[in-house]
Amino acid sequence: MAWQGVAVQQNRPRIAVAPDTRPDMYEAFVDAVRDGGGDVVPIEDAEALVWADPARAAAFPEIIRHGRGVRWVQLPYAGIEPFAAHLDPALVWTCGKGVYARPVAEHALGLMLAGLRGLDVYARADRWREPIGRNLIGAAVTVVGGGGICDELVRMLEPFDCDITIVRRSPNATTERRRRERPIDDLVDSVASADVVVLALALTPATHGIVDAKVLDAMAPHAWLVNVARGAHVVTDDLVDALRARRIGGAALDVTDPEPLPDGHPLWTLPNCIITPHVANTPEMGRPLIAARVRENVAHYARGEPLEGLVDTVAGY
Amino acid sequence: MAWQGVAVQQNRPRIAVAPDTRPDMYEAFVDAVRDGGGDVVPIEDAEALVWADPARAAAFPEIIRHGRGVRWVQLPYAGIEPFAAHLDPALVWTCGKGVYARPVAEHALGLMLAGLRGLDVYARADRWREPIGRNLIGAAVTVVGGGGICDELVRMLEPFDCDITIVRRSPNATTERRRRERPIDDLVDSVASADVVVLALALTPATHGIVDAKVLDAMAPHAWLVNVARGAHVVTDDLVDALRARRIGGAALDVTDPEPLPDGHPLWTLPNCIITPHVANTPEMGRPLIAARVRENVAHYARGEPLEGLVDTVAGY
Repeated sequence: MAWQGVAVQQNRPRIAVAPDTRPDMYEAFVDAVRDGGGDVVPIEDAEALVWADPARAAAFPEIIRHGRGVRWVQLPYAGIEPFAAHLDPALVWTCGKGVYARPVAEHALGLMLAGLRGLDVYARADRWREPIGRNLIGAAVTVVGGGGICDELVRMLEPFDCDITIVRRSPNATTERRRRERPIDDLVDSVASADVVVLALALTPATHGIVDAKVLDAMAPHAWLVNVARGAHVVTDDLVDALRARRIGGAALDVTDPEPLPDGHPLWTLPNCIITPHVANTPEMGRPLIAARVRENVAHYARGEPLEGLVDTVAGY
Repeated sequence: MAWQGVAVQQNRPRIAVAPDTRPDMYEAFVDAVRDGGGDVVPIEDAEALVWADPARAAAFPEIIRHGRGVRWVQLPYAGIEPFAAHLDPALVWTCGKGVYARPVAEHALGLMLAGLRGLDVYARADRWREPIGRNLIGAAVTVVGGGGICDELVRMLEPFDCDITIVRRSPNATTERRRRERPIDDLVDSVASADVVVLALALTPATHGIVDAKVLDAMAPHAWLVNVARGAHVVTDDLVDALRARRIGGAALDVTDPEPLPDGHPLWTLPNCIITPHVANTPEMGRPLIAARVRENVAHYARGEPLEGLVDTVAGY
């Protein structure tokens, strides 16, 4: 039997947090490193670096120059484009991949409920109106994109007994109760029976402008389009036409094309359109989430376990 | 061994649906009776009656006069005040108790997300704004009232990992992970740490005006009040003062006092107040839900099983 009550001597990783130009994030990451079981040390003594200012990627070469012992770099982004030039393959790189899917799914759910239940109409009203609105309970929901946001949204929809269709590049043939997957080529058919269509896919040349007049015309006259992906998935002029002619119930857009949507754009004044300014995951919402990723990765590192959100330095994501 | 392939002769209950003055409900209930295994018959031949027009309670005596064989009456209401004068204790009475909790909880969730994420502010905006909003994920939620709406809301909040406090008359001492119950006398303390306070309790003399300046002052400056119960739970003037002084984050009200809220009332123009006109459960939303109750009760009746939503004719609910 091992002696009881004797603490096991553990290796506390020596981790630098830099730069300190964004105090809220810096402080959150310092706490996260300590909570994960690490010691915060100057870059000169560090074996790992947690990058703490998304806007200062350009400062990386000057800082890493002093970090000769650094083997692992944790980045705060989900998409790491700003660091593309610095991805030294001799180091291990991790990022915030997947961390932000939950708040984005939450925003999508908020926009779905707002659209179906007419909350935008009521928010603008200054008098008691006739009842409008539909239940999300039991509604037919088509989610375009089968990634992390879709996973989280499907989990949030569980209590609502929705009839869910997931449209994705590689559909899963097995069909669960009230849930099925269809290939992206069947998009027009897949939106036809939906009460809400949610866009939650990556923007690639193949998905640019994927929601055009043909897709919008296939939607039911009461159906809502919710976009929490990228503005360029939707052909904006086609959407304006469909909303003006009331060929769909409405659109709730967290992303637009162009973005920011310019003052005076017709989407601002259409009564069946809700626009939120790309706030599904605000910096304030994201901070505790990326801090939790830092904490977990420090704990994994301390125990020699695999890290979350590994970056492929060759592929660049 | 019993003979296989021989259908068991079943007793199909003979059920009248009346009146037929509200065609949408009448037709939904006729279908529900048949789906539940009953035959729709004239009142003269019926052993049970499904009441199909909530606005016509006064017509009941004339109709039941022809229904000498009727033993059971199914009502379409959750609260049966309109039928109070007709509750013959010689009959079995059932109603829509609990049926409407889900859409009301859904509306509460929609109002919570709208408030926390500033959807009302964005709905009124005609330009790209700075990010505002907070996550429901991980938020502290205080639900006042521990009935059916609370149960459904707690289920809908499951994926959000909220820290939930339920304030009720008879708290349950056992505390689940991130969920606790407190007595209504502790209301002031129970709202202090909440990001959202949801009112989902019954209106009684004891709960009339329960949310006053003292409760509102105890709330955090960013916290939202959501009311899907009754307008008179809240002292409206105190709420107007708190919203004007921005002592709370905002209020999302599906019910008001007075109701309907008159034109020109200050709540209409306060930027941190969302008002929906008592639409958590609209007639259109409720119809399939009460039809499902009718279908299930007909099936229970056919099999001699206990009915759902039994009315206590002495207590009157």
